[in-house]
Amino acid sequence: MRSLGLEDVYSQIDGNLDEYLEGLFEMLSQPSISTLGVGIKEMSELLRRTLEEIGFKATVIESAGHPFVYGEILTGDKKKPTVLIYGHYDVQPVEPLDAWASDPFKPTVREGRIYARGAGDNKGQLYAQLMGVKALMKFRGGRLLLNVKCIFEGEEENGSPNLGGFVKEHKDLLKADIVYTSDGPLHESGRPMLVFGVRGLLYVELTARGASRDLHSGNWGGPVPNPAWDLVRLLGTMKDGNGRVLIGGFYQRVRKPTKKERAAFRRIPLDRGAVAKSLGLDPSRLPPSEEFYAKLMAEPTLNICGIFGGYTGKGSKTMIPASASVKMDMRLVPDQEPDDIFRKLVEHVKEHGRDIEVKKMTSTRPSRTGLDSPYAEPIARAVRDATGVEPVIYPSLGATLPDYVFTQILGVPSIIVPYANIDESNHAPNENIKVENFLRGIKCAAAVLESLSRVKAP
Amino acid sequence: MRSLGLEDVYSQIDGNLDEYLEGLFEMLSQPSISTLGVGIKEMSELLRRTLEEIGFKATVIESAGHPFVYGEILTGDKKKPTVLIYGHYDVQPVEPLDAWASDPFKPTVREGRIYARGAGDNKGQLYAQLMGVKALMKFRGGRLLLNVKCIFEGEEENGSPNLGGFVKEHKDLLKADIVYTSDGPLHESGRPMLVFGVRGLLYVELTARGASRDLHSGNWGGPVPNPAWDLVRLLGTMKDGNGRVLIGGFYQRVRKPTKKERAAFRRIPLDRGAVAKSLGLDPSRLPPSEEFYAKLMAEPTLNICGIFGGYTGKGSKTMIPASASVKMDMRLVPDQEPDDIFRKLVEHVKEHGRDIEVKKMTSTRPSRTGLDSPYAEPIARAVRDATGVEPVIYPSLGATLPDYVFTQILGVPSIIVPYANIDESNHAPNENIKVENFLRGIKCAAAVLESLSRVKAP
Repeated sequence: MRSLGLEDVYSQIDGNLDEYLEGLFEMLSQPSISTLGVGIKEMSELLRRTLEEIGFKATVIESAGHPFVYGEILTGDKKKPTVLIYGHYDVQPVEPLDAWASDPFKPTVREGRIYARGAGDNKGQLYAQLMGVKALMKFRGGRLLLNVKCIFEGEEENGSPNLGGFVKEHKDLLKADIVYTSDGPLHESGRPMLVFGVRGLLYVELTARGASRDLHSGNWGGPVPNPAWDLVRLLGTMKDGNGRVLIGGFYQRVRKPTKKERAAFRRIPLDRGAVAKSLGLDPSRLPPSEEFYAKLMAEPTLNICGIFGGYTGKGSKTMIPASASVKMDMRLVPDQEPDDIFRKLVEHVKEHGRDIEVKKMTSTRPSRTGLDSPYAEPIARAVRDATGVEPVIYPSLGATLPDYVFTQILGVPSIIVPYANIDESNHAPNENIKVENFLRGIKCAAAVLESLSRVKAP
Repeated sequence: MRSLGLEDVYSQIDGNLDEYLEGLFEMLSQPSISTLGVGIKEMSELLRRTLEEIGFKATVIESAGHPFVYGEILTGDKKKPTVLIYGHYDVQPVEPLDAWASDPFKPTVREGRIYARGAGDNKGQLYAQLMGVKALMKFRGGRLLLNVKCIFEGEEENGSPNLGGFVKEHKDLLKADIVYTSDGPLHESGRPMLVFGVRGLLYVELTARGASRDLHSGNWGGPVPNPAWDLVRLLGTMKDGNGRVLIGGFYQRVRKPTKKERAAFRRIPLDRGAVAKSLGLDPSRLPPSEEFYAKLMAEPTLNICGIFGGYTGKGSKTMIPASASVKMDMRLVPDQEPDDIFRKLVEHVKEHGRDIEVKKMTSTRPSRTGLDSPYAEPIARAVRDATGVEPVIYPSLGATLPDYVFTQILGVPSIIVPYANIDESNHAPNENIKVENFLRGIKCAAAVLESLSRVKAP
């Protein structure tokens, strides 16, 4: 599996652990909680300095929200590809504080794990990428054989409200051939993976209204309309018995999975029995592997996140509710557009419902990079080389990230390669990254850059 | 409208107001809150003494719950009919106390209304009936021309948990030809009414279960089942587009309304515009009079009282809920049986649902007395005579009371004639009965007993 000739780099990385930990600890010691606006300025400055120390030309760029940190190392060689590394330097709040075994901003190593807020999400992985750049540069005598740009934001944990605008405004600056991100955990099998996309999101709330107040169901039940029934009836027109969405044109723009994607669905390891057990479900309620991943990656959903109306307490209360609501999220796949789907939903509700209000909450477009991208195999090869394990090819997350800002706004393919351990406890107390995962991340980053440098720029 | 020759009785009642108020105030001053068990013993004793003072042979009968108070005045003449007067001496709690303009247990008259807890529900109406007996006896020289039995319970506000058992156990003691109750307000048109029945009740909770915990809708949405959808799908099989219930056999035992009942539905005053306005509904969402009352009185319902599952807070949260529930009440009409309907529901859920639990909460059988009962016209005539107003013939309340204990367990027709003003504020602060309604109640009771005494016992 080793074909890149980076053995020396890998062993040099293993030997440099103390230095890496010192640098990472400095980043982890600096709070940078985006929702509270704590430590953001200090963190962005620290990150800029870190970039410069490695050899990047770096700058902090202000935005409508928290600042972006940009860095670049350019070879000047137009035949060499340009990789854009994305990451985020902000972290989640730390509450409940007393559930932490050690101070979330005083990083410590215990039993092979680095504990701190941001250890896995995302400072540990971001820093691993930078150290990968540094190790490779050292190996190459202080230079790189490809162009590397970095863009790090400070609002990812807030939903990246300014990332799209920033990318739109800085298209030239960010121009690249491939976007390369490390965030999230390894595949649940423990194998590394290459993620080629995400589903989009459209979140809506529908509210059916009846009388202007709750009514006694004895005094009024029968002649008076019940909005909970109106809502249930409307929902009944939205899906058939097989779960297929009946909103007109819902599937119109859905891209059929390619042969390669179908093959990938089949190859992703799925222990249905174990998954069913962990979910407390009968295994018969889960589809087999190919269908499981087709549904998760290539099909949109119309999901009920919450439904509520009338009396929801203990015991019984007889009433006709004044209103009933449902919160729904739709996970969208390429080439569905949230705005288009929202219009179709409104149309459907107008046709099939009565006195039902539709409210749009949030939306994010889907994103997908083809498995046949010229950068796919070089990255897979690098991961294989650095880890000794065949990476899982993951055509799409079921979840949503603002990946479309790269693939659609910037127009660049984007591949995500997570390094964190599955039990990283991101967003939770005792967040951690295993030392071995951190080191593996550095090796992967070095290998990926080396491998990409051998691709001819288009 | 006056044909009973009771003018002297009516004017004598008008003249005796001070004496009536004194007696009523004594009853209203005695707390008797059934849920708290406060003053129950004292109240039942006071009521027994009151009965004896009028001339009843009276006794307090212990039960599994609060005691019953029984009284009788028997003529010994088997040709005379026996009327059984039902009422309750317990009251609702008084909270919030600071919303009362005067102490709920210190009755006071203000602007023609008697204010106190129990003034309308039910002590004022119960006492009016007793004073009607007293006034008629005085008029008839100290005797009655029919047999009068009284049964008063102390747990009506708790849902009458022991009434059925008590009636079953004391069938001989309570043997009668007609049950006569005064509770609740006048018809909303302000006219008196004769109520011939109530709908029954079956209250259930259905819970659909999916995974053993809420799941991230991005990571799992598509291949994993959503119990909220399972529930919505099941509910969709329970009603057609016209609101007709699709549970097999649901309507099987439903009695068709008689010609007389149909005619009554048409004659009940319904100001659709005003009702729609008071409910905040478009008038087009309410059916016309005959259909309105047919739906309320002669048709069962399958009503959603509450529906809930997943995220029900503000804003958006993306999840697949672990479970979703619906609370439903069914208002049942003769001759539906709650146990039979529950079995049919369980059968339906088994056939159309998956992993859905059905829980029975409470049930009460429906009750109906025919409009052609030999006691209907004599009571209507008496109400007409005493009030000068044509009473509304009301085949059934849409709501539920344990009236079946009389019509089904005791096997006796039952007619309810409410006297309270519509704004009696029962169960609420500042409960009251208008002095004129109280006096009218006494006159009505005297007239009803006089009119019934002219009916030949069967």
